Amino acid sequence: MDRILLGHGSGGKLMHSLIREHFAPVFELGEMGDAALLRLDPGRIAFTTDSYVVSPLFFPGGDIGELAVYGTVNDLSVAGARPLYLTAGFIIEEGFLLSDFRKIVRSMSHAAERSGIKIVAGDTKVVNRGKGDGVFINTSGIGGIIEGADVSASRIRAGDCILVSGEVGNHGTAIIAERNGITFDPPVVSDTAPLNGIIKELLRSLGPDVHFMRDPTRGGLATTLKEAALECGLCMKIKEGAIPVAPQVTGASELLGLDPLYVANEGIFIAMVEGRRADEALSVMRSHPLGGNASILGRVEDKPEKLVLLETAFGGTRIMDMLEGEQLPRIC
Amino acid sequence: MDRILLGHGSGGKLMHSLIREHFAPVFELGEMGDAALLRLDPGRIAFTTDSYVVSPLFFPGGDIGELAVYGTVNDLSVAGARPLYLTAGFIIEEGFLLSDFRKIVRSMSHAAERSGIKIVAGDTKVVNRGKGDGVFINTSGIGGIIEGADVSASRIRAGDCILVSGEVGNHGTAIIAERNGITFDPPVVSDTAPLNGIIKELLRSLGPDVHFMRDPTRGGLATTLKEAALECGLCMKIKEGAIPVAPQVTGASELLGLDPLYVANEGIFIAMVEGRRADEALSVMRSHPLGGNASILGRVEDKPEKLVLLETAFGGTRIMDMLEGEQLPRIC
Repeated sequence: MDRILLGHGSGGKLMHSLIREHFAPVFELGEMGDAALLRLDPGRIAFTTDSYVVSPLFFPGGDIGELAVYGTVNDLSVAGARPLYLTAGFIIEEGFLLSDFRKIVRSMSHAAERSGIKIVAGDTKVVNRGKGDGVFINTSGIGGIIEGADVSASRIRAGDCILVSGEVGNHGTAIIAERNGITFDPPVVSDTAPLNGIIKELLRSLGPDVHFMRDPTRGGLATTLKEAALECGLCMKIKEGAIPVAPQVTGASELLGLDPLYVANEGIFIAMVEGRRADEALSVMRSHPLGGNASILGRVEDKPEKLVLLETAFGGTRIMDMLEGEQLPRIC
Repeated sequence: MDRILLGHGSGGKLMHSLIREHFAPVFELGEMGDAALLRLDPGRIAFTTDSYVVSPLFFPGGDIGELAVYGTVNDLSVAGARPLYLTAGFIIEEGFLLSDFRKIVRSMSHAAERSGIKIVAGDTKVVNRGKGDGVFINTSGIGGIIEGADVSASRIRAGDCILVSGEVGNHGTAIIAERNGITFDPPVVSDTAPLNGIIKELLRSLGPDVHFMRDPTRGGLATTLKEAALECGLCMKIKEGAIPVAPQVTGASELLGLDPLYVANEGIFIAMVEGRRADEALSVMRSHPLGGNASILGRVEDKPEKLVLLETAFGGTRIMDMLEGEQLPRIC
């Protein structure tokens, strides 16, 4: 038997063998009950969920399993939380190769270990051939808010500096290139990575002077800044020349008709910090292996309200809106 | 626009309008950030996840939205937890009717209200037409362990009594009948319901004398008892005559070639309680609107180890194993 059968999702013997052979060795599941029992330290927690439907499942720089773990780790991290516990829900298409499933589960296990998060509960459903697409994964996560962290759009102030921790556009470009069978030299690879380490350093140094963080996934940097502008009612003014974009991503974007500012990222975050501490924030980011290309993009201003303004390389100003319609479906 | 488009999952304007128009009015989402910030009382928590892929999406007695809320509420409840917070992750097929989506979201909202659980974070992905099947929903939940509750397979003892809170086989039979276009008179309807109320009453009366609880969903009563037997190493001895099965479910099962003991349930639970308190447990269950058909099924014995023995109506004994292969795919 080398493929997933409908019976693997039916709650009986096949499902138990799947759990025993694939999950039990690599996840930290408790007894076979459906809920994990956990003890949390007193304090506030963050709770988040994301489903992953990326196509293809394996892409340059990662796979859906890794993405599903890091994606939720990152959502917790940008909320100012230390990632603690994760659940994993699989929706598998009948006929999916067990060898690919094993690869994905191992990849999740490695990603969890690298992030220091524990996968404590799971669920497996199987849908008929042609009613799914390989595998979809939901991960939900709990994190404990880090002492001194207080990040939310309501804390953004005029005068804050806007930083990004790394290059923009790598994940989405890698996926779309892979989907179209295009390769670049040097290759474009996904930036998928756990942000809890670099964020912990930033919070340790700046504490509550970090006002806001978010990871620019679907919709890209531009959409995320626009969300922030709408939520806090202020203006985000950034310089095009300050946005780190890898040369091969610039090239690929021109070829594929993409705008890297609207392309999904999976291993960077934006931070808005107290203006006078921007250089310190930059230096903390740059000292971390994931922050070598960190950059100060610009500043928050009072007006014009709720806008993102991009000063172009030619000295003009462009108003950046949210992504309209779909640029790249199933990017994560 | 009356259908879901790929762009509804792309993180941009369409997705924000979906959140604003459909989720925001009925769910208790915080700011648009990806993680909910919560404060929990000190103590142990339960954390669980389940994805729902039931087909059809609407069935006699319920729909996928209600099922997705009650399913996770029940997983928390049988762990001895009070359901507190829920996340909802949607994977929607391009072209899905927005009117059906609205119905499902409203149904989730009502179910959450009835269970006293708050839906605090969500996620929406859209997959291309033919790569999904209408909508799949993941719910993940957090609950706080109830004072005095201590339920786990390791607490099951020889001499414990085995109870079930209601009729067996209704949910699975309703789904399969609907799928095959068969109707019964009186109709067979799903038992989908939140078990936190009845379980709270049971724990209030018996406290730690409730040793184990589980809801017999996929795989049915027989598979759940077999799991328990394997986990505690003891023998579950039950009487066929004591198992409550509605007459129309018995009839439908014969017609459809199903065994109601292996059919999924979504609104009952089994409990193993200290033997001398079985009558009290039964009376607590029967006083609750969801427990009118509660029954004492039998007893836990030392031997033969890890077996489920069914005393049939004819005085014989049948060994009940786990469900083999798949009896009913996509039942939940």
